[in-house]
Parts: sequence; structure tokens; C-alpha cells
Amino acid sequence: MRVGVIGGGQLARMMVPPAIELGVEIAVLAEVEGSSAAIAATTVGDYRDAATVLEFAQTVDVVTFDHEHVPQEVLAALVAAGHRVHPGPAALAVAQDKLLMRERLTALGMPVPEWAAVGSAAELDIFIAARDGRAVVKTPRGGYDGKGVRVVASSAEVADWFGSGPLLAEELVGFQRELAQLVARRPSGEVRAWDVVETVQLHGVCAEVLAPAPRIGSRLATRARDVAETIATELGVTGVLAVELFETTDDRILINELAMRPHNSGHWSIDGSVTSQFEQHLRAVLDLPLGDPSRTAPWSVMINILGGPATGSLADRYPAALADQPAVKVHGYGKDPRPGRKVGHVTATSDELEDAAFRARAAAAFFKE
Amino acid sequence: MRVGVIGGGQLARMMVPPAIELGVEIAVLAEVEGSSAAIAATTVGDYRDAATVLEFAQTVDVVTFDHEHVPQEVLAALVAAGHRVHPGPAALAVAQDKLLMRERLTALGMPVPEWAAVGSAAELDIFIAARDGRAVVKTPRGGYDGKGVRVVASSAEVADWFGSGPLLAEELVGFQRELAQLVARRPSGEVRAWDVVETVQLHGVCAEVLAPAPRIGSRLATRARDVAETIATELGVTGVLAVELFETTDDRILINELAMRPHNSGHWSIDGSVTSQFEQHLRAVLDLPLGDPSRTAPWSVMINILGGPATGSLADRYPAALADQPAVKVHGYGKDPRPGRKVGHVTATSDELEDAAFRARAAAAFFKE
Repeated sequence: MRVGVIGGGQLARMMVPPAIELGVEIAVLAEVEGSSAAIAATTVGDYRDAATVLEFAQTVDVVTFDHEHVPQEVLAALVAAGHRVHPGPAALAVAQDKLLMRERLTALGMPVPEWAAVGSAAELDIFIAARDGRAVVKTPRGGYDGKGVRVVASSAEVADWFGSGPLLAEELVGFQRELAQLVARRPSGEVRAWDVVETVQLHGVCAEVLAPAPRIGSRLATRARDVAETIATELGVTGVLAVELFETTDDRILINELAMRPHNSGHWSIDGSVTSQFEQHLRAVLDLPLGDPSRTAPWSVMINILGGPATGSLADRYPAALADQPAVKVHGYGKDPRPGRKVGHVTATSDELEDAAFRARAAAAFFKE
Repeated sequence: MRVGVIGGGQLARMMVPPAIELGVEIAVLAEVEGSSAAIAATTVGDYRDAATVLEFAQTVDVVTFDHEHVPQEVLAALVAAGHRVHPGPAALAVAQDKLLMRERLTALGMPVPEWAAVGSAAELDIFIAARDGRAVVKTPRGGYDGKGVRVVASSAEVADWFGSGPLLAEELVGFQRELAQLVARRPSGEVRAWDVVETVQLHGVCAEVLAPAPRIGSRLATRARDVAETIATELGVTGVLAVELFETTDDRILINELAMRPHNSGHWSIDGSVTSQFEQHLRAVLDLPLGDPSRTAPWSVMINILGGPATGSLADRYPAALADQPAVKVHGYGKDPRPGRKVGHVTATSDELEDAAFRARAAAAFFKE
């Protein structure tokens, strides 16, 4: 059993430990030498080149992804050549295009913000005017970590985005907080869900995750799970599906984004659940029975190391951080520090939320500045 | 920070996941292509060849081991060339020679069975006659998993072993059960201990581990910890030290064997403790602060997969095993099944010992015959 991962970032990197533990082989098609997943990078090449990807696919039993950017032509070539691809092209298409995503979710009756495809500045200004003079505008393709998203009061603020097809305009949702619901689905249909978590964003980037989401009622928790399970099943997603949610000020949930791969909001599961999102993703794409996603501790708090130290390497800070927090799990991605870059994360588990949060923040503080 | 592991077996393999998680690099000098640790095997070569080992050592910051068989000449060459070697040659010498081990432990006042170095059949027969006509005889070097150990009533039963130096003769200890105490020590002196565990042997091979040792009193548990910490400190062991113990019928502990590396009796710690023996070994040999070795669940039960399926591969059994036991952690070592060979293990954790044991045994049963 050999899984091939396209993309050599930290998500591919974090699939390697559970592959080794479970006893399945893993190979990575990385963009560059010295990627985060270099230890398993059997090929370095361009994921947009069908010949490169097809050659890589011949060395593995199933192809999966560390990101959603593989072009549909390349995916189609893989399927045409008889390779197993999970998630499949039809599901990935929905994750690749935010307009298509909104269309499909709306058709499924899923809770989404009010939205419209706007093809011109005039259309956008009408949309904005109907919503108290503000809206969120997104480029349908290529956005991540806050890129390709702007909150605007006028079409002039996204003038540079017009000209290559319609944009997605959405109501600016009044929300109490953001949540994320992760599930995994295997091709034969089995679906397993982790507990819904709270995500705290900083400048559009995930900074902190509290698992499970504190003070969440069973109604909303059940609703989040139902929504994610429905999407996974109806869109035929295989592997991990992450559903980013707003918890609105009037106690509803609305779907913000989808990701069809392990997701930053699930990193806590490495140290805080019986089956991590990375192990579960491997099981799912191999169509193996899914593992138990139960928490192993009442609370887990995950904090991203964003940017990392201004001088030196992450490793320079290990002696002080590990000495101060012997029970916090420190994860490094093998990347050089750079402002805003996700270079690692820390997770603390505890019987008490406050204790987990305190210790995770204490450990993370060693990796700043 | 780059750790080099000499030996490509399952112990080296199981060091790779925590290296990736923690964000330290790892390289392996494996004996053969396609070893258990192949994913990190940057070199394939003979660990008895100083030139091969020296060349490997130049690519890493510290050298450690998956086994204790590297010759002292090779270790001396590494140290002479300025490489960091953990555990060091002096400590490893004690693990390499059971007679030297008994001498050193006796000199330290550690609890050991009655023993003697016997150079001839006549000496051995005198030793046997003084102990109710039975004794355990061991070859000082090269034994493992029950090999090089015989229970005899006469020197004739080990006639084939005489001729290359003295043998180790020991009293046949009347024991209730076997225990193992694992600790880790870093070069700067910090020592951390896991809970003492019970090990169940089958034909001289570890079959099952119960963590912590059921019904152990605090006096014996403290004694086991003190003994292991003393040995680690006095012998200057760095990395993981495993002390295999007999719990005698009169409620004492006696030291059976030592291993200066991660040990089969500590595999439960991957899934059952905050810091596994493999992560702790990496921290220790890098002289990083040690992690918290506390249990994450009240009970863990680890069962070895010995031999594996008579037909087909381990992976053939995954669909049934994983479906039946979604919360059991299955570990495969990437080895072909062969009678008696350790090809994997399973670990179950639980609030109840009986539940953990039941589920671990149920999962392990899928990999037999």
C-alpha cells in the first residue's frame, strides 16, 4: 500500500509519521528540493505538468494532495490513465472554485452567507448597497490564508480584480466566532467526524485552535457535524474535508470555506485524538476502515508558530521552550523562519481548557521575535 | 539538528515519526536496501566498517544506535574523529558484554541474580550443583530475544559454547513475573522515567506489555525507578536505558538485562504517554530538555505481532483488523512476515486494564496465521 502525495508542504510532511506508524508507504511529489516533506519526496517536479504527475502516479497505489491546486486537466489525465485519485476531480473542482462551491452548497440546501456572482463593478455596487454598504469580495480561485479576500464598501476597492471572470460577493456575516468541523470519508462511504473546534484568526490566518469548541451547545455541534457529513457525502469527498464555519450572533452556523485535505484547524488531533487527521486521511484515501476520532484529553489547544524567530532558526529556541514546557508537543516543519510563514505549531492537552491554553501560549511565546 | 542512527531496524524506523514531528532531521545507516527504516536511510553499508561509519557520521550532528552491536574499535574511531556519540562507547561496552554488565552492576550494589564467570565445564557444573542442579547460562556477547540463553542441568547442554572465553552462569531466579523500567538520560545529566511495566515473554521473546505494571506496590515501583536511574547515571548512559527485571516470588526485583536504546517494552509509550521513548531518545541524544513521560491514559496494552500472517502481507489483514478495532493503534514495520519475526505491534489504551487488553488482543489476532 503506497500513497502518493502531490505537494511537499507541511501537510504532506505531517502525513509521513502516521504512514510510518501504520506501516504504509508514502511518496511525495514536491515542488522544490528541501521541501517540508523532503524526507518522503521521491520526486521533485511541477504538479501542473501532466507528464510529471503521471510518472509519479505510476509509483504509487493512490494519489492524494497537500493542496487543491492541481489543474483539472492533470487530474483528468490521472483518472484517464486508471490511477486512483482521492479526493477525485469532481469534488476537488468545488474546492478549487469558490463560485462553484457556493452554487453547489446552495443547491444542497447548506447554510451559506448571502452571495452573488458579480461580473462588473456595477453589479457589485448593487450587491453592496443592498447590504448596508459593505460586502466581502473573493476571487473564485487561488486564495488562501486571507489572500484573495477583501472586505469592501465600494467596487473601487477591488477594481484590480475585475477582468478575468466573475467575482464572488458575500454578505459580511456578523459572527461571534469561527468554528471548523472536520470529517473524513472513504470511497466506500464511511464517514467519521472529529469534534467541532473553535478557530481564532489573526490577519486572516489561523492562529489558535481550541478543541472542542468551548461552550458549544449540542444543537450547534450536531448541526456542524451534519452539515460536514452531508457535504462530504453529497460532493463525494474522499479523505479529510474541513468546513470552516461562522457562528453567527444569532446562533446559527454559516459555511465560510471548504478544504479537501488535512487542515490547520485539525493539527490538534495529532496529539489530542485517537486518530489524527493525517492518519485518517491516509486510511480514507486507501479505502481502509476509518479510525476512532475521539479526543484523548478533554481539551487541546493548538497554536501556530507564525513567522518564527526574527534571528536564527526554530531549533535555537528548543532548549528554552522544551525546558519550560515539558508536556507541550512542539512541531517544526523544517522551514526557515520568514514573517507570517507557518513554520510550526505547538499543542497542549489538559483536563482544563485554561491550563492547556496557558501552556500552549507559553511554549509558543518562545518562538516569537 | 540532525541525528544519525546506525542500524535500520524497527527501532530506527520508530525514531523517524517523532523526528519529523519535532522538526529535527534524521538519517539512518542501514545494513541493507529496503530496511524497516528505509524512508530515512541515507546510507546503506556495514556498521562494522569504520570508514563507512565515519563517512556517515560526517553528515550528522550526533550518532546514536538502533542496536548495541557496533564494535568498540568503530566507536573509538568516531570519538577520535570528534563526533558526538550517544550512548558513548564506555556505556555501550557494558551493554555489549553480559559479564562486564554483571561486574559493573555488582560493583554498583545493584540487585542482580547470583552469577559467576565460568571458564570450563567443570566450573559450570560446580555452579549448577550449588544451586539445586539448575542454572541459566548465557553467552556474554551477541544474544537477543532468547538467543544465547539456555536453562541447563549440566554443562553438557552448553558444550558447544565453550572455547571462546568464559560464559555467564546465573541462578535460575524464581520469579512471579517480569518487569521493565525505562528511563532516559541526556548528557547534561537530566533523567526522566516512565512508569514500570509488566512484560510477558513467549519463548524468550516479548509478547505483551502492560503499562503500568498491574498491582505493583509503590515500594517496588520506586525501587525499580531508583535502580534504573542509578544505572543510567553511574554508567553514564545517554538516550533510553531499558532495565529488564524479575519480580521474585519473595517480592524483590533482580536485574535481568540492560539495553541502551529504545526497547520493545516501551513501544506502548508511542500511544500511551506524553513523550514516547522514541521522541525522548532523540531529545536525549541531542541534549535537549527531556519531555514529560507521564501516561496519557490509565492503561496501555501493547502486543507484538510475531511472525505475522502465514500467507500474504500484514497489509492484507488491515481491512478486517481496523474495522473491528477502530481505536487500537496498529503499527507495521515494513517487514515481510516470517515465523517468529517482530513485524509490528498493536497498542490499546483505556481507563480499564481489561478493556485495553481485550481490544489489543482482538486486534493482534487478525495478524496471526
